[in-house]
This record gives sequence, structure tokens and C-alpha cells, in this order.
Amino acid sequence: MTDRTDPQDAPRLDDHPGEGAVRGTQRMEIFVDAVFAIAFTLPMVEIKLPEAGPHFGAELLALWPQYLGYGLSAVVIGIYWVHHHFSGAIYRTTGHHFLLATILFLIAIGFIAFPTRAFTEHIHEPEARETGAIFYTCALAATNLTWLIKWRTGRLTGDVDARLDKAYVERLTRKYNLTAALMVTAAALVFVRWEAGLALAAAVTLFYLRAPETPVYVTEAPTVEGEG
Amino acid sequence: MTDRTDPQDAPRLDDHPGEGAVRGTQRMEIFVDAVFAIAFTLPMVEIKLPEAGPHFGAELLALWPQYLGYGLSAVVIGIYWVHHHFSGAIYRTTGHHFLLATILFLIAIGFIAFPTRAFTEHIHEPEARETGAIFYTCALAATNLTWLIKWRTGRLTGDVDARLDKAYVERLTRKYNLTAALMVTAAALVFVRWEAGLALAAAVTLFYLRAPETPVYVTEAPTVEGEG
Amino acid sequence: MTDRTDPQDAPRLDDHPGEGAVRGTQRMEIFVDAVFAIAFTLPMVEIKLPEAGPHFGAELLALWPQYLGYGLSAVVIGIYWVHHHFSGAIYRTTGHHFLLATILFLIAIGFIAFPTRAFTEHIHEPEARETGAIFYTCALAATNLTWLIKWRTGRLTGDVDARLDKAYVERLTRKYNLTAALMVTAAALVFVRWEAGLALAAAVTLFYLRAPETPVYVTEAPTVEGEG
Amino acid sequence: MTDRTDPQDAPRLDDHPGEGAVRGTQRMEIFVDAVFAIAFTLPMVEIKLPEAGPHFGAELLALWPQYLGYGLSAVVIGIYWVHHHFSGAIYRTTGHHFLLATILFLIAIGFIAFPTRAFTEHIHEPEARETGAIFYTCALAATNLTWLIKWRTGRLTGDVDARLDKAYVERLTRKYNLTAALMVTAAALVFVRWEAGLALAAAVTLFYLRAPETPVYVTEAPTVEGEG
Repeated sequence: MTDRTDPQDAPRLDDHPGEGAVRGTQRMEIFVDAVFAIAFTLPMVEIKLPEAGPHFGAELLALWPQYLGYGLSAVVIGIYWVHHHFSGAIYRTTGHHFLLATILFLIAIGFIAFPTRAFTEHIHEPEARETGAIFYTCALAATNLTWLIKWRTGRLTGDVDARLDKAYVERLTRKYNLTAALMVTAAALVFVRWEAGLALAAAVTLFYLRAPETPVYVTEAPTVEGEG
Repeated sequence: MTDRTDPQDAPRLDDHPGEGAVRGTQRMEIFVDAVFAIAFTLPMVEIKLPEAGPHFGAELLALWPQYLGYGLSAVVIGIYWVHHHFSGAIYRTTGHHFLLATILFLIAIGFIAFPTRAFTEHIHEPEARETGAIFYTCALAATNLTWLIKWRTGRLTGDVDARLDKAYVERLTRKYNLTAALMVTAAALVFVRWEAGLALAAAVTLFYLRAPETPVYVTEAPTVEGEG
Repeated sequence: MTDRTDPQDAPRLDDHPGEGAVRGTQRMEIFVDAVFAIAFTLPMVEIKLPEAGPHFGAELLALWPQYLGYGLSAVVIGIYWVHHHFSGAIYRTTGHHFLLATILFLIAIGFIAFPTRAFTEHIHEPEARETGAIFYTCALAATNLTWLIKWRTGRLTGDVDARLDKAYVERLTRKYNLTAALMVTAAALVFVRWEAGLALAAAVTLFYLRAPETPVYVTEAPTVEGEG
Repeated sequence: MTDRTDPQDAPRLDDHPGEGAVRGTQRMEIFVDAVFAIAFTLPMVEIKLPEAGPHFGAELLALWPQYLGYGLSAVVIGIYWVHHHFSGAIYRTTGHHFLLATILFLIAIGFIAFPTRAFTEHIHEPEARETGAIFYTCALAATNLTWLIKWRTGRLTGDVDARLDKAYVERLTRKYNLTAALMVTAAALVFVRWEAGLALAAAVTLFYLRAPETPVYVTEAPTVEGEG
């Protein structure tokens, strides 16, 4: 799709014919990081301050499922942000279709706090807790699928940095494929046995607390330009 | 309005006399992208978590018009963002009047989720749905007009990149004019037959899922500076 | 306070002894522009969608004071943003005390939508409208004073670009002083005759729709680096 | 952990083996500053506009504990932002574990407005005020601990700028250790005598209104690249 001859070249505005103005990744990150930041912080408005009264302290403590909802949602969004931040060094340009796939991913990120709360805020009530766990697990799986769609789109459109070692890119693809397969399994399992489905989805998500593999470049690794 | 002689030159702070400190587009994009991001994510706070109870699952499913409102609003804002992101490669500077036109456009972007919800959240109720569709279609048309005003202002003030091929800029102008004309038609039609008006506005909006034409430069296309 | 000898030099991290790590203005603008963007967009959450019913259309129209509140707040914040964006070309560095003054200014920006709504949402009710107008005018004046404090702090700490013509900086100072004096006058007047006080504050604010004077540099005007 | 030989070199993407794509600090700051900005501004949505009526003015004045809550929360978040902004000149890269520590810190920043309001909004009621003060002081101490964790992580992972004078970095570490120790003391004291605990936490926080020590570099201080 591109006629780039030297992978060391900086991206050019006219590089992807038919894909509009292809630009570097930096500018896209402003919008993406702002959506991440709002999705991360916004759930705090759902926690209502109790009225003053003799049980004010106990009521503050009793809000722990809501604090948990905020914290859990922030951890999941935070993990996705760290990996998105990482992949910002993997992509080199942002074509039109890659931006659309990013929008889809961000719709999932903006939504995820809601199913998180459906689970955590009803954690005391067996029936609602199970329903919440199903909703939450399915939402985690759907979010993961949008990540995979974004990755696949980026590969198809040539937005992934051409200087990366092909085997390295292949390993990332396999890792994302496997993750998505496990998340879909969790979403199926949660309907059968909710604790197992949720535990699998949580384990897969927490696995991403580990640092991703350092990128391997065929050509000499680029310096981080414009970043003091 | 400017006495720029070499279109290859970087923009200078003193380039547009009488227009204040004209700056490159990058810094403006922080504010604009942040408004886009908030408008995109904020509607989630309107979706209230149902109480726990025997019908918790059914109640979560019954919220689908609200999920639809969030998703629809995010898709429309996302499409505008992608094209704004694209046009960030079309503009080269941001003069005072262009910034004011941008503010007007952002007021529309920040507002659009409300008429979206007026339609989607009352989708079950024939009368309110029609009123909502009218409101929504008119809001989509008004938003589109602010886009056109922004574009025309940018052209008038000389903020559009002077290195672009004139025929290319002309094609963009015709496209934006035609879009606005169709949206105004939709806004008139919706009062006569709401399904037709809304469908036209939706079709025009979804047309923008297609990638815009790659910019054509008279002089050699610039590289994307400062974007690794 | 600095021993900078050549005003053409780029700012250095160790330039302002005793003021911590003085940095260029770009990074500060991320936070500032994000606060502007949230203050701009957040008031939309205060507009509640009416229930469906036979008067849904009329109820949507009857919300006009709330739409006005959103729009008015956005226009005022937008004007401040445009001038802040402009002054981002006037400042060259951001020392510790300048950042603190910026925080004060942003507290006012984040607050301004509330007194705006106190006026617009009670515009039908004579007594509350007068109280709202007093609150709003005082808030506009207070916001303007924080702007002046920020400007004076920036001058005192040497964060204003040393390459600017001294007479130009002097004209800006006089303009900001005069504006603040008029706003304080409006805030006094509004207690006597609310229409007059509010009108004066509005006139002064709308005056800033005009483009600021183009910066005048003693040395050759710098190009906008890092902005494609 | 790194084999960097010349501290003057720009950071490289492959610099920290096993830590993913290590990047400069600029891109991380977009997300971080956006979270700061939302945490700063969001508490405004908690202040509800009183209904119109004969006591509208008095009711607006009676909201002062809520205005105080917004202002106090903004001041504390603002102080942390100024020092985070400062430390953005201290760090040079952002490895995976440093990003995770940053997420933890941001969870605390996004939360802090809630305990602030628990104190200020019940300031009239002796019992609830004491409970609120305990909650607030503990939250301030916890936030400070996440700051220390972030700092220690940054030192361990080698993300702190290697060009800084070792004694300077040591002084910062001692300062942050001492601060955390005082905050933990305040959090213990507040259970015994709430006024004393809160006063200590407030005093330590306000101490940070003072400018931090200017960074001392072993090698020549770097210019602020890419910042006009």
C-alpha cells in the first residue's frame, strides 16, 4: 500500500495513498490519552457522600464496594493505557482506518467502568453479583477484542513501524491472539460458572502487569525524538 | 493577508499582522482533542446503574437505548475527531479568528450527546421519539454548519497550508459545501417526515467513515516533524 | 534573577536559581488546556433530559436557559482560552511561582460555569435573576483578577519572553490593568444596578473577541519550533 | 540495568531490556496531566445550584463549605501537579514499572476530592467533621505514600536522569522520605487528636508551595528541547 523505500525515513503526509493525511502517532495520543484519563477518573462522580449523622464513619466504610469499583476500573484502564503507551512506540503512523479502529477501542474503554460497578456495587447480593460478574466478564472480553481489532487494523494498513523485526511483530500478534481467545473463553465460561469465568478474565488481565517484551529492530533502533 | 513569500518556510509568530500570535496547529490540538475526548466519554455518567433485585439482569438489558445513545454519540464525535485530526494536516497555523471559529465548533461537539439521547432514550415512545429525531437531526445539521464555518474561516484567514494544491483545497471546499447543504436539507425534511430526515443525516454522517482524499501538495510534501 | 546573556538562547533547565526546574511552556499547556476543556464541556451534565410525554417538545424548548448557560459559559471560557493560547507565545518559560499563579487562575476557570448557571437558569425569576447576576458579575471580575495576578507573576519572575519589545509588553500590562479595573467597577456597580454591572462586565469580556496585538520582538521573531 | 555509556545520549527505545518500550517523559505527561486536570475540575459537578426563591442569595452563600471543598481539593491537586511537572525534568525515561507506579499515584489523585468533601461539607457538624478530618488526613497520607513509591520506583528502574548530580538526587530522596514520615505521623495523630493530625498534614502539604531546589547536573545542563 505504500511505496516507502527506506524504512529509516520519517513518515510523510502523502505516504498512504487513499488513506487521507497519514500522520505520526504523537497527535493521536492526545485524544486517546484524554479519553483514557476521563474514563479513569470519571467513575469517582458515582460515589455519593453520605449525609452527616451518628453513623457517618460507618457509612463511609460501607462504601467500600464503590471504592473497589473505582479502583478496579482504574487498574484495568491503567493497564490498557500502559500497553497502549507501549504500542505507541510500535506504530509509526496513524492512517484513517487505524483511527476508526482506535475509536472502537475507546468506546469500550469509556464503557468499562459501568460493568465494573455492576459487579462491585452489588457484591453483597448473590444474585445481582452473579449477573454483574457475567456483564463484567463479557465487557472485559469485548474490550480485549477491540484491542485485537485495532492491532490487526494497524498491521493491515501498514501503520506498524516497518523497522521492527518481523519475528518480534509476529510474537506480539500471537500474544494478542492468545489473549483474545482466553478472554472469549472466559466470557463463555462465566455463563456456566461465574467465579471461574471472572477469575480467568482477571488472571489474563493481571498478566499484563508484566512488562511487554522490548521491541526488536532490524535497522538501528531510533532515538526518542522530540522527547527531552 | 500575509506576505509570506516562500511556502516552504516555517510559520512565524509575526506572520499574520493584526491577528495576535499566530502559532502552529499542534498546541491548539491539545485543547480541541481534550474537548473531543470529554464530549466522547462524558455521556457515560448519564447511565444509572439499576438497583440489585430479582430483575437486575433484565434491567441491565433494558438499558440498551442508553448504551445506544452513548455509542451513537461516540461514533459521531469520533468521526468528527478523525476528520479534525486529518484537517490538522491541512491547516498550518491558527490565527485568532480561526480559534474563535473552532470554539463555536466545539460548543456544538460538546452539546451533541444531549440531542442524541433525546432520540435514543425515548426510542420506545412514538411521539417523544419523533420529537427526539427532529432535535437530533437539527443538532447534527447545526454541528455540520459550524464545521463549514471553521473551514471557511481557515481559508479566509490564510491558516490553510499554502503548500497544498489549489485544486485539492477546492475539492475539499466543494465536499464540505455539499455536505452542509445535504444536512440542512435533512433538517428541513425531518419536520415533514422524520424517518427520512434522520436517515439522510445519518447517511451523510456515515459517508465520512470513508477515508478523505490524500492531500496533494504543489511543493514537495513535508515530513511530519516532531512525530517519531 | 537570571544571568541569561543572549536572549536568542533556548531556555535552560538551570536558568532560574531557586525556582526549581524551569521548563518551556509547552508541557504546562497540556494541563492548562485540559482544565479549560473540562470546564468548557462539563456543564452539559447539568442539563437533564426531560421524561417522554405529550409535552416533550415543549419541555426541550423550555430548557433554553440551560442551553444558554452552557453556551455562555463556553464562550467566556473559550475567550480566555484563546487569550491564554495567545499568551503561550508571550511567555517563554514556566517557573514555580508562575505555575502557582496559573493554578489560581484555573480554579477560577473551573468555577465560572456555576455562577453563570446561577444567573441563566433563574432568568425567569426577577429576584433570583438579580442575585444570580450579582454572583456572575463578581465571579467574572474575580476570574479577571486571577488573570492579572498570573500576568504580573510572569513578569516578576522573568518568564515573559525576553525577546519581546519592552513597549509591547508595557501595552499588554496597561490593557490587562485597565480590564481588571473595569471588571472591579462592574462588580461594584452590579450591587447598585445589576443590569448596568452585568452589561459592563459583558462588554469588557466581549471586547476580547477582538484579536490581540501581534507580538513585537526586538530581536528577529522566532519561528514556531516543533509545530508542523 | 542499562548499558548506557554516555549520559548525554538521548534515550533509546531499546535502552531498558525487559521493560518494554522505554520512552521519553513527554508522552506520559499527556495522560498524567489529563488525569490531574479532571481530578482538579470534576468536583464542581457536586455543587448543586439551589432553587430560585426568596432565600436564593443566602442559599448561595450557605454553600461555602462546598466552595471550600472544591478550592481545597484544587489547591492540593495543584501542588502535586506543580511538583509532578517539576519532576518531569528529573526523570528522563518512563519504563514499564514506573508507569505502573504512576497509575497507583493517579488513583490516589483521582480519589482525593472525595475525602476532602467528607471533611469540608460536614464542617458544621462536630461529629461528622471529626470523622471527615480523619478520612481526609489518612487520604492525604496515602496519596503521599504513592508519590514516594513512584519516586523510589523511578530510582530503582533507572528512569531518573543519569546526568543529575548524585547528591542532589539524594537530597530529593531524603526530602520525600521525611515528608512521607510526617504524613504517616499525621495519619496516626489524627485518630488521637484530629485537629493536630489535620494541622500537621496541612502544614506539610503547604510546605510544598515553596519552590523545589533547582536541579544540579554533573554534565552540562540540557536545554529544554522542543519547547519554544
